[in-house]
Amino acid sequence: MSLSTPIAEGARPIDTADLPDLAGLAEKIFADVAALSPDVLGVSRPAYSSIESQTLAYLETVAEEFGLQSWRDAGDNLVIAAPDDASPEAPCGYFGSHVDSVPQGGNFDGLAGVVAALLTLIALVREGAPMRVPLRVLALRGEESAWFGNAYMGSQALFGRLGEKALSTRRRDGRGTLAEAMRETGIAMARIEAGEPLVDTQKIRFFLELHIEQGPVLVERKWPVAAVTGIRGNVRHQAVQCIGQAGHSGAVPRWLRRDAVFATSELIMRMDDHWATIQQHGGDLVLTAGIFQTDPARHAMSRIPGECTFSFEARSQDSGTLRAFEELLKSECRIIERERRVKFVFDEAVRAEPAELDPAMVEAILAACAAEGLPAEAIPSGAGHDAAIFAQAGVPTGMLFVRNRNGSHNPDEQMEVDDLIAAVGVMRRVARDLTQ
Amino acid sequence: MSLSTPIAEGARPIDTADLPDLAGLAEKIFADVAALSPDVLGVSRPAYSSIESQTLAYLETVAEEFGLQSWRDAGDNLVIAAPDDASPEAPCGYFGSHVDSVPQGGNFDGLAGVVAALLTLIALVREGAPMRVPLRVLALRGEESAWFGNAYMGSQALFGRLGEKALSTRRRDGRGTLAEAMRETGIAMARIEAGEPLVDTQKIRFFLELHIEQGPVLVERKWPVAAVTGIRGNVRHQAVQCIGQAGHSGAVPRWLRRDAVFATSELIMRMDDHWATIQQHGGDLVLTAGIFQTDPARHAMSRIPGECTFSFEARSQDSGTLRAFEELLKSECRIIERERRVKFVFDEAVRAEPAELDPAMVEAILAACAAEGLPAEAIPSGAGHDAAIFAQAGVPTGMLFVRNRNGSHNPDEQMEVDDLIAAVGVMRRVARDLTQ
Repeated sequence: MSLSTPIAEGARPIDTADLPDLAGLAEKIFADVAALSPDVLGVSRPAYSSIESQTLAYLETVAEEFGLQSWRDAGDNLVIAAPDDASPEAPCGYFGSHVDSVPQGGNFDGLAGVVAALLTLIALVREGAPMRVPLRVLALRGEESAWFGNAYMGSQALFGRLGEKALSTRRRDGRGTLAEAMRETGIAMARIEAGEPLVDTQKIRFFLELHIEQGPVLVERKWPVAAVTGIRGNVRHQAVQCIGQAGHSGAVPRWLRRDAVFATSELIMRMDDHWATIQQHGGDLVLTAGIFQTDPARHAMSRIPGECTFSFEARSQDSGTLRAFEELLKSECRIIERERRVKFVFDEAVRAEPAELDPAMVEAILAACAAEGLPAEAIPSGAGHDAAIFAQAGVPTGMLFVRNRNGSHNPDEQMEVDDLIAAVGVMRRVARDLTQ
Repeated sequence: MSLSTPIAEGARPIDTADLPDLAGLAEKIFADVAALSPDVLGVSRPAYSSIESQTLAYLETVAEEFGLQSWRDAGDNLVIAAPDDASPEAPCGYFGSHVDSVPQGGNFDGLAGVVAALLTLIALVREGAPMRVPLRVLALRGEESAWFGNAYMGSQALFGRLGEKALSTRRRDGRGTLAEAMRETGIAMARIEAGEPLVDTQKIRFFLELHIEQGPVLVERKWPVAAVTGIRGNVRHQAVQCIGQAGHSGAVPRWLRRDAVFATSELIMRMDDHWATIQQHGGDLVLTAGIFQTDPARHAMSRIPGECTFSFEARSQDSGTLRAFEELLKSECRIIERERRVKFVFDEAVRAEPAELDPAMVEAILAACAAEGLPAEAIPSGAGHDAAIFAQAGVPTGMLFVRNRNGSHNPDEQMEVDDLIAAVGVMRRVARDLTQ
């Protein structure tokens, strides 16, 4: 893998001059796939469903129109290859993402990455550049956890990581299990159920995933694209209880109070202070208490809240920061317990390790951005992605975000095709190097 | 009114040596009244109900046994007087409280004050002390807001303060209105409906109410009784909304967050700091946010909370402190709105003015406590009481608390009759002066 693309000083975006015709293709694919997966609001492309299968079949016809090859891998994901890509078993690299969506979701979460990969391959084939390591498009199934409670099913199956528990989870609408849905799709389940990898990791030379940004940074910063530095892991508590003592709001003086809401508010503010400090020292962290509830059966304006329940989540690219955060959380709880005479009762923490993206790939993306005359900027990914599964399997992995308004997982996702085309320009530059 | 009782240095509680026989009477009354008003848990004596009427009728029979007179006032509250109390229309003073209870409440909230007043009158009559201003027992109806949404109905009716809105409020279980319940009780409603006082305030020379403490201070301090310095007023918001912006918990960095829970936690902590400061400067204040809710239909562990709702209540004996608190609350909101880019939306504040108790009465109670060899201590009342209505009408009013565990408005109220007898000793001393 050569990642030596020099940063072109004062480069202009002339290199994408041949790409605008691909913008029309992108728009057509987005429109056609949306028409395949309509819902009352937005689109619904369930994981391992016939709609997902139809989406892959449609993409195959597009590939065929452009003279590309295509086949399915052992997980029934779609692989698209250049016409001269002779041997499916030979080492290769993938650009790709997933095609499924959340229920009533937007059209771009996942699909944008598949379209960008396809456009990149088309552009490369068109310019006739020889690829010593062939670039292939990977259109994955089953990334969204909304359907079977687990995310990254398509990529986890590839690396033998879909456990029994995940396979036996029923679809949220009560339909069959994930294993049944995969079998109905036509997948041979024996190796997946045995936890065997379906791919030879050594033969995957790189994986690059474009994804719409699910936060507001690129819009706020006016960056069309950004390199992703890493994928944040997290530590999560779904329901922490704070237990104090209820009492008459007028009759209990300050020194005798054991107020669960004041105690929890203090905990949140203490952790907020740590967050600011960690960030000032260059650490990566985001904190969220998305749920905060006094007991509706008992709470009242004039009753000192004797208990409340809250969720608490920390995310960071750095596993050390997450561990330090957990320590801080517990030690702040002990101080508040003593001072406010309450008790914090924690549920079991659920942890996800951060995924490190390949530093050389990050550099290559930044260099390509600069060469394209785009801001060469990088941010972490707060959400998980298939790319994390590839990275954790040891595949040199990169990601780039494309600007998107209104977050994701809702019908209001708003990505401009112009930004996607700019990203394709970046991906083509990166691909030229990666395939040599 | 002479309030010159000197504090007896090193006094011993010998003066109540003749009172222990009254402990048995107190226990009998509590048991008999509880038997009249049983519920699945605790007792229920609804305001303006037949159970309340039976309770008053029962107390009349007790008065009769001790040779006392009794009659009903124009609000059908029970008045008990000494045998030689010749003219119901002559000026007098009252010791008393209410007989109704909350649903499934305890037996002592209200009733303890009536029993203590009755015991005091019995003791005074027994010792044959002449009363230039006759002491009477007032057993009030309808104090608890649990039934018709309004508190102090019995005392408000006396002073012509029961408005049309209160009178037309239906009982919470869907039965008739307060006016209907009062009429069924046998009360002539014309003057009450016209907002006319049923009593000549000038002729009420004093009102003293004993009440169980509804907080934990007396238990914690080991004080059997305490004088009440004043009745806290309050400023209340049932539902303040904090509006920020929802977002992906992993994808929105700190500088772009508009987190409603963090903003509200900060508001609570800022107000908590002010509370500590005000208290350090000798001010009287309690603060409570009894309700704190993210939206159950939208909240999630991994979603930045875009809004939350909370209640906020301040109580103080001092109306200036309450006004200053309201100013502080609003100015802190403005600061947080700017810093955290949220918006606080306030519902209309509901205010209740503090009630000032008569300083001479407070002094008299403290002096009597000391003379009885009891700790001479005073605390504010956080809850409202009929005493506040008398005080607001211009009647010189005092209150004392008797020690009680487990708060009130629940079946676990726990007052020791020994403490009540100690209070009767104090009340007798105060009465001796007040009636001269």
